[in-house]
Amino acid sequence: MSIALTVTNYVGIVAFAVSGSIKAIRKGMDLLGIVVLGFTTALGGGIISNIILGIHPPINLTYLPYPLTAISASLATFIFYKAFSNAGKPLMYADAVGLGAFSASGASLAYSVSHNPLLVVLVGSITAVGGGVIRDLLSNEVPVILTREFYASAAILGSLVYFLLRFIGVNDASAALASMTVTIILRFMALRLKWELPRRVINEGIAKA
Amino acid sequence: MSIALTVTNYVGIVAFAVSGSIKAIRKGMDLLGIVVLGFTTALGGGIISNIILGIHPPINLTYLPYPLTAISASLATFIFYKAFSNAGKPLMYADAVGLGAFSASGASLAYSVSHNPLLVVLVGSITAVGGGVIRDLLSNEVPVILTREFYASAAILGSLVYFLLRFIGVNDASAALASMTVTIILRFMALRLKWELPRRVINEGIAKA
Amino acid sequence: MSIALTVTNYVGIVAFAVSGSIKAIRKGMDLLGIVVLGFTTALGGGIISNIILGIHPPINLTYLPYPLTAISASLATFIFYKAFSNAGKPLMYADAVGLGAFSASGASLAYSVSHNPLLVVLVGSITAVGGGVIRDLLSNEVPVILTREFYASAAILGSLVYFLLRFIGVNDASAALASMTVTIILRFMALRLKWELPRRVINEGIAKA
Repeated sequence: MSIALTVTNYVGIVAFAVSGSIKAIRKGMDLLGIVVLGFTTALGGGIISNIILGIHPPINLTYLPYPLTAISASLATFIFYKAFSNAGKPLMYADAVGLGAFSASGASLAYSVSHNPLLVVLVGSITAVGGGVIRDLLSNEVPVILTREFYASAAILGSLVYFLLRFIGVNDASAALASMTVTIILRFMALRLKWELPRRVINEGIAKA
Repeated sequence: MSIALTVTNYVGIVAFAVSGSIKAIRKGMDLLGIVVLGFTTALGGGIISNIILGIHPPINLTYLPYPLTAISASLATFIFYKAFSNAGKPLMYADAVGLGAFSASGASLAYSVSHNPLLVVLVGSITAVGGGVIRDLLSNEVPVILTREFYASAAILGSLVYFLLRFIGVNDASAALASMTVTIILRFMALRLKWELPRRVINEGIAKA
Repeated sequence: MSIALTVTNYVGIVAFAVSGSIKAIRKGMDLLGIVVLGFTTALGGGIISNIILGIHPPINLTYLPYPLTAISASLATFIFYKAFSNAGKPLMYADAVGLGAFSASGASLAYSVSHNPLLVVLVGSITAVGGGVIRDLLSNEVPVILTREFYASAAILGSLVYFLLRFIGVNDASAALASMTVTIILRFMALRLKWELPRRVINEGIAKA
């Protein structure tokens, strides 16, 4: 992993763990719930990806710096909740950086197992958004990525960029860096411009795309 | 896979994807949510089964015709929602065909890994109903198979038929065809005759089997 | 597995299956839902652990006495619901015995795959509490272990004891027995003394640790 991807990866682990812990606190969970939600939001996507690819045991459970970072960030959120919950905007951008780092490293890992385009795109995206889905399921909510904003879509497009670059001969490090950059820029733009995907309104009996 | 099982398998992927997408639309999800729910309803059961059996990466993610069919059916549901949501009855019967195809192919795959009767029945059933369970969990609902109708039970009995036929020496293709037929007939009868499994009424303090 | 761990393991399967089936009955599920919730509460944690460790297919699905015990206990709960639902206290202590047995056997299994301390503690804990999390998710509730009581924490500490004892040279059987005993005692004390983990109160705008 290049230095850029390593650094952004840790930014992502911290941002994701904080988002999970904040959700746990708002749901009235206890300290265990706060750490579990921080942990799974940060590392759950990578764990699912490893299981899909047949990597046992998952790297996120054995390479200690990752879980220790996630647990520390969760405990910090528990202690400094007020400060963290007032940092909505910086956290959102840190989260976007993590989204890019996770999808790029997931796509890269999948590509090292198989050159199947769908697998690369799906594993990249699941690495990026799987943790957030687990966070929402454990909070007894419909996963937010399924209902609004342009979030998982950025990870899907970024993972696709990784695959296409490898396909035309670009090496892993450059493809990962470009993939990450694309995801982050797309997500930043989505936040700025309040991008939303189309949906169907059915309440009035009138369907609209 | 025999031609009959191949055809019914695609019928199942389409019917399951449509059921997932319709649920997503009714829950107010956006286009991504609609495709994700269609995809996971159609392919999630098979993915879980592959993970249980240790088949990495899951066939449903690498054999492209399956995911492409599921994604296309989800997009078609998004576009032609009105037509699809008025086709409740035909969809229900197509879904029953898929239930039979999925349980038979799941049981067959499990049998190729291990002749353990429980594993064959469970993997057959999970292949058939696992996607629907994921659909309901992502929709923040109690999985419908746990609460009413005779649905998973048809898949369990069909998978059992597969095991018993192999046990007495019948070959894979014939056992799968018979298993599928049994599941479909049971599910058709359940729909017609409104079969329900027993439950316990506890509100009045009186338990009834 | 020592005789003590074997016996307590079956106590746990029964207690966990009963807890899952009772929850299913209270949620108004039908007979299938009752058996599925009993089954997954009892065996789901071990299945997840096996998948994390790369043990295919999971032991809980292939070693027939385990699933048959879970299914029998679920059916017994269906039939004798009234008696079981009046046995809250004995069941709670049987559940604590299971918590100890499951975490010890999970930690022992993980240690046989890798000596990574975090993996051993996490797999031990997931073996013990994973089934209850699945039970609550299938019931459309926030997992109770995330919100109150000192439950998963007992399994975490017990799993840690297993690792530390192995680390200083104690053999598997003794370490497992000690680990189980620690978990059970901690859980018994937590029940008696109504231990709770700290949480943050945020409604009044005042955070308190």
